[in-house]
Amino acid sequence: MGIKLGLNAYGKNAVNLSKIIRHGNLHEFRQISVNVSLEGDFETAHTTGDNTRILPTDTQKNTVYALAKEHFTSSIEAFGLALSQHFQSNNPQVTQTKVEIIEFCWQRMIIDEIAHAHSFINGGSEKHRTTITQTNTTTSVTSGIKDLLILKTTDSAFVDYIRDQYTTLKETNDRIFSTFCEIEWDYASTAVDFTVLYNSIRACLLKTFSAHKSLSVQHTLYAMGEDVLNSFKEVKEITLKMPNKHHIPANLEPFGMEHSNEIFIATDEPYGYITGTVTRD
Amino acid sequence: MGIKLGLNAYGKNAVNLSKIIRHGNLHEFRQISVNVSLEGDFETAHTTGDNTRILPTDTQKNTVYALAKEHFTSSIEAFGLALSQHFQSNNPQVTQTKVEIIEFCWQRMIIDEIAHAHSFINGGSEKHRTTITQTNTTTSVTSGIKDLLILKTTDSAFVDYIRDQYTTLKETNDRIFSTFCEIEWDYASTAVDFTVLYNSIRACLLKTFSAHKSLSVQHTLYAMGEDVLNSFKEVKEITLKMPNKHHIPANLEPFGMEHSNEIFIATDEPYGYITGTVTRD
Amino acid sequence: MGIKLGLNAYGKNAVNLSKIIRHGNLHEFRQISVNVSLEGDFETAHTTGDNTRILPTDTQKNTVYALAKEHFTSSIEAFGLALSQHFQSNNPQVTQTKVEIIEFCWQRMIIDEIAHAHSFINGGSEKHRTTITQTNTTTSVTSGIKDLLILKTTDSAFVDYIRDQYTTLKETNDRIFSTFCEIEWDYASTAVDFTVLYNSIRACLLKTFSAHKSLSVQHTLYAMGEDVLNSFKEVKEITLKMPNKHHIPANLEPFGMEHSNEIFIATDEPYGYITGTVTRD
Amino acid sequence: MGIKLGLNAYGKNAVNLSKIIRHGNLHEFRQISVNVSLEGDFETAHTTGDNTRILPTDTQKNTVYALAKEHFTSSIEAFGLALSQHFQSNNPQVTQTKVEIIEFCWQRMIIDEIAHAHSFINGGSEKHRTTITQTNTTTSVTSGIKDLLILKTTDSAFVDYIRDQYTTLKETNDRIFSTFCEIEWDYASTAVDFTVLYNSIRACLLKTFSAHKSLSVQHTLYAMGEDVLNSFKEVKEITLKMPNKHHIPANLEPFGMEHSNEIFIATDEPYGYITGTVTRD
Repeated sequence: MGIKLGLNAYGKNAVNLSKIIRHGNLHEFRQISVNVSLEGDFETAHTTGDNTRILPTDTQKNTVYALAKEHFTSSIEAFGLALSQHFQSNNPQVTQTKVEIIEFCWQRMIIDEIAHAHSFINGGSEKHRTTITQTNTTTSVTSGIKDLLILKTTDSAFVDYIRDQYTTLKETNDRIFSTFCEIEWDYASTAVDFTVLYNSIRACLLKTFSAHKSLSVQHTLYAMGEDVLNSFKEVKEITLKMPNKHHIPANLEPFGMEHSNEIFIATDEPYGYITGTVTRD
Repeated sequence: MGIKLGLNAYGKNAVNLSKIIRHGNLHEFRQISVNVSLEGDFETAHTTGDNTRILPTDTQKNTVYALAKEHFTSSIEAFGLALSQHFQSNNPQVTQTKVEIIEFCWQRMIIDEIAHAHSFINGGSEKHRTTITQTNTTTSVTSGIKDLLILKTTDSAFVDYIRDQYTTLKETNDRIFSTFCEIEWDYASTAVDFTVLYNSIRACLLKTFSAHKSLSVQHTLYAMGEDVLNSFKEVKEITLKMPNKHHIPANLEPFGMEHSNEIFIATDEPYGYITGTVTRD
Repeated sequence: MGIKLGLNAYGKNAVNLSKIIRHGNLHEFRQISVNVSLEGDFETAHTTGDNTRILPTDTQKNTVYALAKEHFTSSIEAFGLALSQHFQSNNPQVTQTKVEIIEFCWQRMIIDEIAHAHSFINGGSEKHRTTITQTNTTTSVTSGIKDLLILKTTDSAFVDYIRDQYTTLKETNDRIFSTFCEIEWDYASTAVDFTVLYNSIRACLLKTFSAHKSLSVQHTLYAMGEDVLNSFKEVKEITLKMPNKHHIPANLEPFGMEHSNEIFIATDEPYGYITGTVTRD
Repeated sequence: MGIKLGLNAYGKNAVNLSKIIRHGNLHEFRQISVNVSLEGDFETAHTTGDNTRILPTDTQKNTVYALAKEHFTSSIEAFGLALSQHFQSNNPQVTQTKVEIIEFCWQRMIIDEIAHAHSFINGGSEKHRTTITQTNTTTSVTSGIKDLLILKTTDSAFVDYIRDQYTTLKETNDRIFSTFCEIEWDYASTAVDFTVLYNSIRACLLKTFSAHKSLSVQHTLYAMGEDVLNSFKEVKEITLKMPNKHHIPANLEPFGMEHSNEIFIATDEPYGYITGTVTRD
């Protein structure tokens, strides 16, 4: 029985890049982190150390900076498509190029109620992310939101679950629901307005999260996914990862104080981790 | 020559607490992390293991949760004062109580342009922090902003500095100025409106940062401090720590592209670290 | 076209547990973090909020602590198998249980050249990890090493790679090779001595890394995988993820100093990321 | 009442540097992170943007790399002294130079029971740190250990503490004592063998931690400090910061299991934080 190379890939990660886009005195500021990953005919690199089919990751990094000048002018999806097209069309040994771009969130400073032309402030943990996967015959775009920290103080219950000898959890009809979520959806086409769609899908997700009478994380996760699929025909499928950020009621009874669902212990670990894909028939 | 105990302190850190403050259906959500630190007559605890003067850190933690119900109703400064007052007045062996509170930043979700009554989204890396230091005779309040990530794309220069045999930096009249700063100021009194002052001082800092024609980080740091002292007589002194978040121009010349101050490499390390206190004569 | 639930799972992550195993005065100390993830018939939980088939993640957590007393006595693989067996056999609605356990590395303190009976010191970033995947008919065990930071100061070259208009990297026949790697292998059986095998495979990996005349990361990655498959018939397949921890030669020529491959700039980002599976025909 | 500049400093942080020291085929590998901070006559830099007295932090970084070639050949203390001497003697506007160096811990790989000549493995979270503070007339060296994670499974008690209405903690005569500590001591002279002393002081600290019958963290902290001062006349004073890494007994009684001080919940927050200086009369 022989030994052989299986699935393999390589590339440069965390190419951290920022760009000023100038419209006269009005500046846009964009900050992204790019990962490139190539698959292809790299067997002899592994087995004999033959690098003649290897485009160095250092060169990949340089390429990202160089192409940003001309091609990073609008959405990260459009820039990602330009990058994957470059690597795929210039490297015959490559069978698949994957480009992932994460965009950090900067907001214009509001000074005396006016948005400033060139000053910005960090816009939260939330990031916009896209992954382009291109072969010689296909190109797909997956986009989504990463590190979105959201919370609601009511309209969340958890009752009627299984009980066994290890159950200590109490049922509740009114709890805090907080999640640090990651949501990704597949676009049905690469010819859409990525920026408009991203903003609209994000708004739809937040609206459903806010309005939902939640009976569990699963229940809200599915409702959020369903609403996106119902509203956006451009979306084929959506996956939501919703780790719980638990806020556990503090037990003040030992101190002679009544429980009033008011004071909570915020914990990071352990945490419930709920994931699900909502798709079309 | 003998050996003896010098400066010492102990307490509970990272008491992570959240609170829902209900105004009918309109909910406030607040999330804080509390550190308590006590100094006092603890010599025999160290030298002989005598714990009879030790209030356990576990009890300190319980106290924070219990007192939050009644006393955490407005600013973190007010809650901190209630906590320090409790520890200082109930523990004769304690000579100084220090309470530090960090408040995380949550914003109401905006759904269809309306602020939601009970849904929230993470409001950025920025945190509001206060430190209360209380002895039997004095109480002082220091407040400030932690982890404030700000950036301007122009109005920042750096020229005319010292040159020596290790100089490679080029002068620039137009660079990105970004800093992940920490700013703290001492209040002259404990009888002020902490919430109004905090918001006003923060607005003043951002306004000066935006408007300043910066000749160096030091130059802008001082201007920000000076403007706060000029505008707020309630502030005795202000300290600014302004680490650089460098955005270094990408060198695209090897690829036959002209430098146009457009594409930058965002780096975390190494980083310039500039600190200064601005005070009154 | 309808909408439906696709792949989904839920469970408790980061159940952080430590155990003292006492052999008279000689104590073992073990510290692990456990993730449980269940797949199964959870459609109505998502679509209607029906929790009657949901074993709460809080109960999963309790189960981990309770079963640790009797079942966490030797390898994490054995404990993982006991946990997956419990969840799978007690929950008919569950079609697959996945249990992941990460073990932190503690070493006995050496005091006056003798290993101490009950004092321990952190043993490095390296962790031992296992993932058990159990259905009603199959059980598989994947084990490996996570966060293993290794480095060699020579016997690493990188030459003869592709050149294009974005190439600036110089060829080198002597560079630092450092990687923060993650390695996982699939066992052919669940009836092996997991502890002996883990230690032997780890030793094999380090030996090959040390001895290899590396022509690229891919070249060494494959050699490490091949040596494990050649030496351990119990291993079906092995996957290595080897991000580069770059140590870039510092350019001292501007200061009139010759390059002598001696002083390096240690950087975290961007980083090369090389992954590969080595398998059997 | 005027406004003026108070205490201020600036410098470069996180200058991450590695070095290969070659003894024929036997290589040493050292990795450090250097912070430089200068105080001096920088008032006009702040008030008018005059940079003529500013040595750029970029130049400081270059200097660290350049001086490493000749001067980083033995202890980090010796290298720090060379760096502080350089900055202090070449910059008349500087009144104080502070150089902090953190050394990461690499160990030779042991292959077939033999230490390898050029392969290394991460040696744990522990770091060796030194801070050199130099003025025109004085030079002081503070050294210590950072991020030292240690634990003992017995010989630790906590009883007879204060009780009040917020007490819920139970007394214990046998608990886990774990701490992620930071220890620093001031040397009485700059003319000592820093490497020998560091290793000896570290061994003394671990020995006392292991052997001590602890009645509280304070009790062990003081014993560790006292033993160092008794054993090393070269040490003037020592400060220990000992945050608790709590391992809380898991309550298995709800599941019909007896408590046997065996299974623990490992938590990071909240945590007790105990600090103390032990000094000479």
